[in-house]
Amino acid sequence: MRHEISPRSGAAFALDRGQRLTVIDPCGEQVSDLLAFARADSDEVISSGRTLDYLSRIYLTAPDPIYSNRSNIMLRIIQDTVGRHDFLLTPCSKDTFRIIYGDSQPHRGCFGNLAAALEPFGIAPDRIPVAFNLFMNVAVDGVSGELKVLPPLSKAGDRIVLEAEMDLIIGLTACSALQSNNGSFKPIHYSIDDGPVPLAAFNGSG
Amino acid sequence: MRHEISPRSGAAFALDRGQRLTVIDPCGEQVSDLLAFARADSDEVISSGRTLDYLSRIYLTAPDPIYSNRSNIMLRIIQDTVGRHDFLLTPCSKDTFRIIYGDSQPHRGCFGNLAAALEPFGIAPDRIPVAFNLFMNVAVDGVSGELKVLPPLSKAGDRIVLEAEMDLIIGLTACSALQSNNGSFKPIHYSIDDGPVPLAAFNGSG
Repeated sequence: MRHEISPRSGAAFALDRGQRLTVIDPCGEQVSDLLAFARADSDEVISSGRTLDYLSRIYLTAPDPIYSNRSNIMLRIIQDTVGRHDFLLTPCSKDTFRIIYGDSQPHRGCFGNLAAALEPFGIAPDRIPVAFNLFMNVAVDGVSGELKVLPPLSKAGDRIVLEAEMDLIIGLTACSALQSNNGSFKPIHYSIDDGPVPLAAFNGSG
Repeated sequence: MRHEISPRSGAAFALDRGQRLTVIDPCGEQVSDLLAFARADSDEVISSGRTLDYLSRIYLTAPDPIYSNRSNIMLRIIQDTVGRHDFLLTPCSKDTFRIIYGDSQPHRGCFGNLAAALEPFGIAPDRIPVAFNLFMNVAVDGVSGELKVLPPLSKAGDRIVLEAEMDLIIGLTACSALQSNNGSFKPIHYSIDDGPVPLAAFNGSG
């Protein structure tokens, strides 16, 4: 079953260990911010700093693992038809639109959408860290350190598939920042599937 | 008064709004991980993701501000004799030494030292985010995204001065990871000074 996240909105849901989350960019050039919290203890959360350190790389793709602040693997990228995502920046927020765009009545952004979606799971806004920003194309100049937010490389139908290595709460958005999405706001699609049945299960039923 | 942080250890202390923290590398090529928490509410914490986004740059130097997760300025870099620091990686930890170095009896690292130093202030280990890693020299390949931890550019006596823009709890270490410090563990020095007296104070006393 394919779910739709409307433009400039967000969702949160459970993802069990072994299940696979497929996130699809249905129109192309649309970013989706992803967060993960351990269901057993939501103080364990996706960590850019741990992941980049262990991978010695800022760009992730299949089959890279994504670590928590406690250095456990939360998710693993199983398939990736794009190969360019960001893991440096926090979700766009009222403050982003005020500071970067100069908006006087700023949208609540991915940060506000994630905070609202995660509230029923007892996760407070201050617990939102740097997100894994699917399809977000942030170029880094290795000499000056300058960051440039470029149009996503994703085309319509492109996808990334992540498998949970622990029981998780996932936060996911259709990103609200003009610059990140090449100037227009589009939806994001996602689906959840059970992973391949382990061999042991076949053996057990024989 | 100059304080010393012994090799592979850490400290935590209050820094009032307007005060200046000077961090000195007394021997050269020694990293110091810095954390900041708002004293009024320690859920407000230094944020790499917000800061890099607002600066559009991964490398900070004077006169750059350092933002919190709530998009408030916590600190501002006033002076910097090195110009190369890292704001991508989390403090080294038992897990770092286990995963990257393969140590069977790993040191608790900057993470453990910060957790111990921050405990009396009521700050839990899970609250430790990506640190602002003073003097740490992490090169990024803009094409492949590869990260390389290189020897610090700091020489003996080099320093960075940060001014607090709110009342803070600071966590500070002499980093415990061999690779970050070009193969040897050295101390870090720091001092706290009141900032320049504002003009209004002179006017008021006249």
